[in-house]
Amino acid sequence: MTRQELVNQIQRKKSFLCVGLDPDMTKMPECVKHEEDPIFAFNRRIIDATLPYAVAYKPNSAFYEAYGIKGMVSLQKTIQYLHDKNVFTIADAKRGDIGNTSARYAEAFLSPQGDFDFDAITVAPYMGSDSVSPFLGIPGKWVVLLALTSNPGSADFQTWENASPLLYQRVLEVSRQWGNEENMMYVVGATKAEMLKEVRRIVPKHFLLVPGVGAQGGSLEDVCKNGFVEGEAGLLINASRSIIYASKGEDFAEAAAAEAQRMQQQMAAYYL
Amino acid sequence: MTRQELVNQIQRKKSFLCVGLDPDMTKMPECVKHEEDPIFAFNRRIIDATLPYAVAYKPNSAFYEAYGIKGMVSLQKTIQYLHDKNVFTIADAKRGDIGNTSARYAEAFLSPQGDFDFDAITVAPYMGSDSVSPFLGIPGKWVVLLALTSNPGSADFQTWENASPLLYQRVLEVSRQWGNEENMMYVVGATKAEMLKEVRRIVPKHFLLVPGVGAQGGSLEDVCKNGFVEGEAGLLINASRSIIYASKGEDFAEAAAAEAQRMQQQMAAYYL
Repeated sequence: MTRQELVNQIQRKKSFLCVGLDPDMTKMPECVKHEEDPIFAFNRRIIDATLPYAVAYKPNSAFYEAYGIKGMVSLQKTIQYLHDKNVFTIADAKRGDIGNTSARYAEAFLSPQGDFDFDAITVAPYMGSDSVSPFLGIPGKWVVLLALTSNPGSADFQTWENASPLLYQRVLEVSRQWGNEENMMYVVGATKAEMLKEVRRIVPKHFLLVPGVGAQGGSLEDVCKNGFVEGEAGLLINASRSIIYASKGEDFAEAAAAEAQRMQQQMAAYYL
Repeated sequence: MTRQELVNQIQRKKSFLCVGLDPDMTKMPECVKHEEDPIFAFNRRIIDATLPYAVAYKPNSAFYEAYGIKGMVSLQKTIQYLHDKNVFTIADAKRGDIGNTSARYAEAFLSPQGDFDFDAITVAPYMGSDSVSPFLGIPGKWVVLLALTSNPGSADFQTWENASPLLYQRVLEVSRQWGNEENMMYVVGATKAEMLKEVRRIVPKHFLLVPGVGAQGGSLEDVCKNGFVEGEAGLLINASRSIIYASKGEDFAEAAAAEAQRMQQQMAAYYL
């Protein structure tokens, strides 16, 4: 999906919501556990219910790999199910390796011929340019590079005080030369909303994928105040647990829809 | 596998060789391509042939994920085949995510009940302590943390001059407090052999997984000179392409064995 196509969806749905599809059998409602493929059954109903309110879906690969081959089959069915839904799809896989190996990850997650044909993949920057470049250059496909993550450990290196500029700033400054606003996004955690101004100074127009609203405690308002790009949002705000586990009962899909709608309405009222 | 068990294998085989199992259909001999599962057929013959000379095997997950579900099944068969071989197994997966998500990756790659029950997994440090800790604490299981990688892009952040100490030094210094010499190793590229002295100053006894000897041009001699730990090696030197693609003919397994033996003999003669 191109940037323009994504912006069109954002404007049409008046939403820049991304739903994180992180299935956890211990949190899923009883009623789907007896399905042949409980994870896919759960995801399908969540997708159907939230589709009017979301422009992007982000399965995190860890939650599928934890169930081994079966989990990977559920992931495959999920991405196939998303294909005709006109939504932006992100493999939250946080991959990255030496050049010839990253090229294989690109084949795994961005190839139209592969089992996992996503629009975008999250990539970890630690190994530098040649670990990221192989994911770029495929028309309509994107790298979402980790910059400033939402977890406590982000202080260990990303905002470590003995680097100047800070490491996350360095990552933004160097990596924006590897791609452009049509094929790169950045992960910036909602729990770091006060740093979004600095992020926007370095990458004023790149789309930012923002996790951490919802279960992790970040605020939609603070994120928009500092990160919103006029006319096209420039943000994909992700919520996972707060939407997909809004209810553990048989009404789980309706509850997910209600929570997604609540966020979408907040986005529409104030920003779009 | 515990540290002592690994050291026992190193002393018994007089080897600290790790064989990288990175299957690539375009490089594999014709004779295995007609097998029902060519990747597993290839790996099985490579393992059988090199087993006398190697103490560890390291499949890189990218090379399996690139073939989708089929590739993951080949990976599953490969790790199962390695289970009774008394070797140290490393999932070269370079994972890492926020705490509750890293816990799912640990389940995927280190759980005895899972499809991919490895002894160790490579982890990327960018997200800090809570992204690494969930992999620690399982008896006999290891994190192999990226410190100083063998690729050109390592200069972008790992040895970036505006941080003091350098980022890879910071990673070593901080992370050695997260685990210990019984459950953590570090990746240090052979192409950075001159920096091994500095690595050894910070982590004198931790095992180092050293890729980059062979196809990437690193020297076994330089690595040992600066990184060897008396009595127990403290090194796992990985070679992938130079061993597994030593021949593209029907003699591929014999050629792999010969190359593995050549490296093992160099190790035995000078160091063990």
